[in-house]
Amino acid sequence: MKHSSIGHKIWALPGCCIPAESTGEEPAHTSRDEISILNTGESVAAIEISIYYTDREPVGPYRITVDAKRIRTIRFNDLIDPEAILLAKEFAALLQSDRPVVVQFSRLDTAHGGRDHSTTIAFPVT
Amino acid sequence: MKHSSIGHKIWALPGCCIPAESTGEEPAHTSRDEISILNTGESVAAIEISIYYTDREPVGPYRITVDAKRIRTIRFNDLIDPEAILLAKEFAALLQSDRPVVVQFSRLDTAHGGRDHSTTIAFPVT
Amino acid sequence: MKHSSIGHKIWALPGCCIPAESTGEEPAHTSRDEISILNTGESVAAIEISIYYTDREPVGPYRITVDAKRIRTIRFNDLIDPEAILLAKEFAALLQSDRPVVVQFSRLDTAHGGRDHSTTIAFPVT
Amino acid sequence: MKHSSIGHKIWALPGCCIPAESTGEEPAHTSRDEISILNTGESVAAIEISIYYTDREPVGPYRITVDAKRIRTIRFNDLIDPEAILLAKEFAALLQSDRPVVVQFSRLDTAHGGRDHSTTIAFPVT
Repeated sequence: MKHSSIGHKIWALPGCCIPAESTGEEPAHTSRDEISILNTGESVAAIEISIYYTDREPVGPYRITVDAKRIRTIRFNDLIDPEAILLAKEFAALLQSDRPVVVQFSRLDTAHGGRDHSTTIAFPVT
Repeated sequence: MKHSSIGHKIWALPGCCIPAESTGEEPAHTSRDEISILNTGESVAAIEISIYYTDREPVGPYRITVDAKRIRTIRFNDLIDPEAILLAKEFAALLQSDRPVVVQFSRLDTAHGGRDHSTTIAFPVT
Repeated sequence: MKHSSIGHKIWALPGCCIPAESTGEEPAHTSRDEISILNTGESVAAIEISIYYTDREPVGPYRITVDAKRIRTIRFNDLIDPEAILLAKEFAALLQSDRPVVVQFSRLDTAHGGRDHSTTIAFPVT
Repeated sequence: MKHSSIGHKIWALPGCCIPAESTGEEPAHTSRDEISILNTGESVAAIEISIYYTDREPVGPYRITVDAKRIRTIRFNDLIDPEAILLAKEFAALLQSDRPVVVQFSRLDTAHGGRDHSTTIAFPVT
């Protein structure tokens, strides 16, 4: 079961927006937008994330890595360098990886005491 | 991190239907169907939206623009020219852009006091 | 804004299962799995749906049409010829159209007094 | 309505995580991450699933089969050989089939007395 790198190098997510309110224990129940990145390859994937807004210049790159044969889940809530992403503000994320990866988006909203989850595979650009 | 235009010029969303009821503060909690459009390019994207129905001729174009290196989120609730879209009525949206963009669909339904969210990347036609 | 036919002729949905319970007024709040089909072309689309199960032969075809420049939303709950689809039973749907269409899947589950909605664009086969 | 095999042989799902808590009757209301696999072909499909983690080597293969002209829904909760998948732990699934299939992902979370469902078609790699 050896795999070389699988997936695409550029992925887009136009419809992100971190829910402003949470209920329940942190961090498990913290409302969030997050991306799960799968790197099946034999080398670390270095990824740059650009954040696009409605009314100002894009911000980035946010630099992350995903180890070989590992996944990594990034909560947008936790991206703080070069700057934190505001809650309840619409944004898009563009990921550029030096190696093929696969990206899935999830939102968890616990504002009203439940756990509302939604998910989609991100858009594979190239 | 310069990007030329990324994505597709025609996108389809067959399964739209604005939920009829809302609870909570407007506009943050207003039930809605919406599309988030990412334009990574260096020029404004001009987009025409056609709305298809079950029992009458398509309506449109609804004309919108998305600035260079920006996103724009359009609530179908807010499209009123050439005519408003009725609540609780099934429709499809077809987007035609003069430049490549990426489109994600979201529904928020607050009818029952919670926030039920669902999302999918739209279908990239060409 | 004339469009010729847009989309694909064969679409697959492996993960269908009509929720067994509903609350609220019918038919608006009836729990359901449904598909929304967009036909942007100038001619009627004739579609055959095959239903696949875990433990018996596929059933079909269920025959439907979608008029030119129209959408049609089909609740699997309403497919009864050649036979009704059982509630709370896993199935897959395979759609074969004589013209290109676009297909989106939605589930609405009102079993617990709320409206839980989930959606994805179906898988475009060819 | 004869179909040869339809779909892809490799599918990826980066964003899996079995919800830890459930309410309601088992097994119908057990919280779960699951995949629904459609095999439209005339032969059994043999599938190997590899599970990727954030902090340890991939585990697998988990071997399953899907009969000809059938679907099969696999709850990740039920995969126990070579080892069970932990609850509330992020993982990715990579499916490799010897024949084309189509794969859809669903999560059901009943932790708070409701039924929160989310779904997406998996990512078709090749």
